Amino acid sequence: MTSALNNRFTAVPFTKVRVDDAFWAPRMAVNRERTIPHQYRMCLETGRIGAYALDWRPGMEPAPHVFWDSDVAKWIEAAAYSLATHPDPALDALLDATIARIASAQQPDGYLNPHFTVVEPDKRWTNLRDLHELYCAGHLIEAAAAHFQATGKRALLDVMRRYADYIERVFGTGPGQMRGYCGHEEIELALVKLARATGEARYLALAQYFVDERGRQPYYFDAEAQARGENPATSYMGRYEYCQAHLPVREQREVVGHAVRAMYLYAAMADLAGETGDAALLAACEALWADLTLKKLYLTGGIGPSRHNEGFTGHYDLPNETAYAETCAAIGLVFWAHRMLQLDCDGRYADVMERALYNGALSGVSLDGTTFFYENPLASTGARHRQDWFGCACCPPNVARLLASLGGYIYGEREDALAVHLYVQSRVETGLAALRVETRYPWDGAVRITVDPRAARFTLRLRVPGWCREYRLAVNGAPLEAPVERGYLCLARDWAAGDTVTLELAMPVERLEAHPTVQADVGRVALQRGPLVYCLEAVDHEVDVRHIVLPEDAALTPRFDQALLGGVTVLEGRAAALDETAWAGTLYRPVQDPVCRPTPLRAIPYYAWDNREPGAMTVWVRR
Amino acid sequence: MTSALNNRFTAVPFTKVRVDDAFWAPRMAVNRERTIPHQYRMCLETGRIGAYALDWRPGMEPAPHVFWDSDVAKWIEAAAYSLATHPDPALDALLDATIARIASAQQPDGYLNPHFTVVEPDKRWTNLRDLHELYCAGHLIEAAAAHFQATGKRALLDVMRRYADYIERVFGTGPGQMRGYCGHEEIELALVKLARATGEARYLALAQYFVDERGRQPYYFDAEAQARGENPATSYMGRYEYCQAHLPVREQREVVGHAVRAMYLYAAMADLAGETGDAALLAACEALWADLTLKKLYLTGGIGPSRHNEGFTGHYDLPNETAYAETCAAIGLVFWAHRMLQLDCDGRYADVMERALYNGALSGVSLDGTTFFYENPLASTGARHRQDWFGCACCPPNVARLLASLGGYIYGEREDALAVHLYVQSRVETGLAALRVETRYPWDGAVRITVDPRAARFTLRLRVPGWCREYRLAVNGAPLEAPVERGYLCLARDWAAGDTVTLELAMPVERLEAHPTVQADVGRVALQRGPLVYCLEAVDHEVDVRHIVLPEDAALTPRFDQALLGGVTVLEGRAAALDETAWAGTLYRPVQDPVCRPTPLRAIPYYAWDNREPGAMTVWVRR
Repeated sequence: MTSALNNRFTAVPFTKVRVDDAFWAPRMAVNRERTIPHQYRMCLETGRIGAYALDWRPGMEPAPHVFWDSDVAKWIEAAAYSLATHPDPALDALLDATIARIASAQQPDGYLNPHFTVVEPDKRWTNLRDLHELYCAGHLIEAAAAHFQATGKRALLDVMRRYADYIERVFGTGPGQMRGYCGHEEIELALVKLARATGEARYLALAQYFVDERGRQPYYFDAEAQARGENPATSYMGRYEYCQAHLPVREQREVVGHAVRAMYLYAAMADLAGETGDAALLAACEALWADLTLKKLYLTGGIGPSRHNEGFTGHYDLPNETAYAETCAAIGLVFWAHRMLQLDCDGRYADVMERALYNGALSGVSLDGTTFFYENPLASTGARHRQDWFGCACCPPNVARLLASLGGYIYGEREDALAVHLYVQSRVETGLAALRVETRYPWDGAVRITVDPRAARFTLRLRVPGWCREYRLAVNGAPLEAPVERGYLCLARDWAAGDTVTLELAMPVERLEAHPTVQADVGRVALQRGPLVYCLEAVDHEVDVRHIVLPEDAALTPRFDQALLGGVTVLEGRAAALDETAWAGTLYRPVQDPVCRPTPLRAIPYYAWDNREPGAMTVWVRR
Repeated sequence: MTSALNNRFTAVPFTKVRVDDAFWAPRMAVNRERTIPHQYRMCLETGRIGAYALDWRPGMEPAPHVFWDSDVAKWIEAAAYSLATHPDPALDALLDATIARIASAQQPDGYLNPHFTVVEPDKRWTNLRDLHELYCAGHLIEAAAAHFQATGKRALLDVMRRYADYIERVFGTGPGQMRGYCGHEEIELALVKLARATGEARYLALAQYFVDERGRQPYYFDAEAQARGENPATSYMGRYEYCQAHLPVREQREVVGHAVRAMYLYAAMADLAGETGDAALLAACEALWADLTLKKLYLTGGIGPSRHNEGFTGHYDLPNETAYAETCAAIGLVFWAHRMLQLDCDGRYADVMERALYNGALSGVSLDGTTFFYENPLASTGARHRQDWFGCACCPPNVARLLASLGGYIYGEREDALAVHLYVQSRVETGLAALRVETRYPWDGAVRITVDPRAARFTLRLRVPGWCREYRLAVNGAPLEAPVERGYLCLARDWAAGDTVTLELAMPVERLEAHPTVQADVGRVALQRGPLVYCLEAVDHEVDVRHIVLPEDAALTPRFDQALLGGVTVLEGRAAALDETAWAGTLYRPVQDPVCRPTPLRAIPYYAWDNREPGAMTVWVRR
């Protein structure tokens, strides 16, 4: 496998990064110590682990569900990542045992799916559109690649290779093969990982097949529905925009349908564009990126406003209170952005990755690591709270695997360059250098990097975040102007051991406004400082947060509060509150000058909301 | 039947009112000449009329649907009303023939429902919760009462009496009776009409039974689901708030669930409260009214913001673009308000009735009478348009029956008083007087009433609309101060033939704002003049209507344009438009002073939108 893209970077894997900062390290510890054990327990108690015994018989409740494998797989992935950076013999043994259970459910032909083995054995591959069969395979493949990468153990990898080999025999354009693909994308990006883990290009070719076949006419899903005796027109979600199978992927220009499906597909497209240099695939990725980020992205990095299709609607349709903004979708956006970022190290991708990571994805898990948001609205009347599990439990283990592998999103490398995408206090080892990064980011914009070179000369690329409008750079204490390329400061020099680079990113409080066509944000501002989007919570205010008006000239002061929410920088100031009492007995009235009284305002980072007393919340504040 | 409410008024029936104004009379003519024939054709072509032949056999498509009867019934009601004021032998004959078809489908025991006679004959009365069986009966009963009232013919009335008698035997608290009630309220108010049409109090008692039984524990719908072998917890729409069966009706204080169902129930509750003087029922009605009108009512009189349950959500949740605001729900609100208004002639009820009638209900039909809105959003990106019919076709014939019976909403009477609720140019005949009302309302607030008394002394009650802040009253040209009681000017005097009363209602353009908790309307104003809510349509503007900003001091001038939209008063002025070009390449940015350019603004009445070139629309404009 060689790349046709000369600027292509590779992510430095999490196994080479040791995160020890004050922001992420405690979250990763909670993830390891509480979230991962909690999720195993939930998988066990709900029958998801036991399902691999294949001892279900008709009448037993619950029957193994079509997407249960994916929950177990994401848990394995999270646990494996965790194991790689924090050895834990008990967890190691639990993983081995769980993998053995899974392996025992593999059929002689390689097939592996409890639902279609014991519940509907005659329905294998009969409804790729709705029943998540290849999606589950994909998640198990990702788990296998992760477990191998983390532990070097091949048990699950071998199982999933056998399954992938079987899938390769079943699907394709050859005689006797099914020309199908999955309604819920996932296996495509998983096969890329499998190709990388095994070094076998044929898995990449299989991924390419699934991507290329998607959306071609005549539609496979039409034929498949007819074969089931169903009218394709009565499909669950109308035509195939829902699963991005309405057009061949290279012709797609608008982000449509189910948001998680979209992200997983686009991530695979970016992977393949990187591997093959396919210009048409890259052009589709870039057009889809522009459509998403200029017209369909919440300030929090959340995506997919509608509960109806768990996904996208029209341009600039970004309602706050009803924002679906599924945790998995924000995580999917991190995946896609991370892959786009590897293509040519363009900070636009890192900006969106950072936005989603620090806000709309991180909000998916409570500070104590045991409750989870499926939806991440930007305003709440007080009724939205995290839960400890879901019948459709995709989000909790998705957050767990993201946090456990966070180290893998920080750095990128190329033969002659080492890039710092995110500022997270950590140590990293690569062929070019070992870096020690020290910072209090995201609470503070000061970053100090100590370089221990392994190569005499290389370019250190330091991202200037899109939110940053002023910065100062110095090497060994001497101020320096360095060229900026696609949002990265480029320090090309002969490095000496102990060289220090300091970067001071000015991090003032920003008031942001939304594009005028975003109707939900008319007359409102949002607060951001550094990468963090802020919100107002009822618990911090004596008045209804929906009645708070932020005057244009009100000073807002950041203050770090170690005792609050695990340690956060709050924004404080004086605002005004509309007097609701003047409205007794009426819902509409002729316009009057508003009656306001002064009120203190305190904003907290959005990711930390709903960790105290329940109440209303809003990101967008009246101006 | 006697009333315990001493102030109770009775609506002067449409048969005694002749509307000849410039606003409603042309709409009623279009309704008669185009809408009613169009809807008959649709009922015929879709199989709704043919279904009464009971010749459906398994395999034939489409099978008679569970709610088809209600569409035919509302068409009959509309046609009958029309016939009463505009004799038409062909329509008369068509009604007779259609009624004969319906009658032929009646079973020996009185039962009448094609679906449960030929499609699922073994399912009669097995799923009152979901399958609209009593709802259909209710609509056919309303049709029967209307046809009898309009024509004096008893054919359908006799059929429906037999059906009602059968229902009376089946349902009730006696031994061997089912203690059920319908998931979709309707039969309750229909039985009140049947009692009035026949003079038989037992139909009122049956209505009372259905109202009283609703929401009692143990829940009938639970038992019914269990009898079907279903788990009641997996009901289509969760627990029974959806159909207002979560609590006994007298304990209900919050407007919940499906909006049309709610309105039909509350209408029946108001009917029964009026008939019986039941204070607990009246208190529930009043509490529900306050909840609806102070926290859940769109400015247009639309109600029920959510597509999910076709109904209500939380307090102050009134999104504009996604407003469901079903046409039938606004019409249902007209029904309920009209009944509340009879209880003690309180102008608050007339205000809401007028708001719904002139805005959110009237918007349901195009000016040419052949296309219909199901949903009535208060903003559109341009993709919402009226259709000529719907699979679930409740709204089109509901508008038709409302327009055909409009005369019945204008006047009310009591032994000693005659009330004018709505200002519509018309003639009315009652026992107290004949009135000639002349006005250009809603385009102008001048009203002239010529009195031809039939009784020497009575009180003429003239409504001062809630929107009106200044008025002048004169009798025979002499200015007069008259006492105002619950929003009505009370002119108690000895009347002479030819007495004239003139009322001048000042009708300036108003800028309205919404309660501060309504998040969708933050930073926005709406325009209203008289009873009409206005909107901006793309076709009238060179800039995106979502970018138009209305300065506080911009003058807005009403101008009547006979050539536009059948003749409307437009509001015109100078506004500003945000410059979107400054936003190329970004969705969010630090707050800047807005760049605006002047732009002419033209607002049209909301009811008339989407009758020209398709495009964006908004009721609420940036301030």
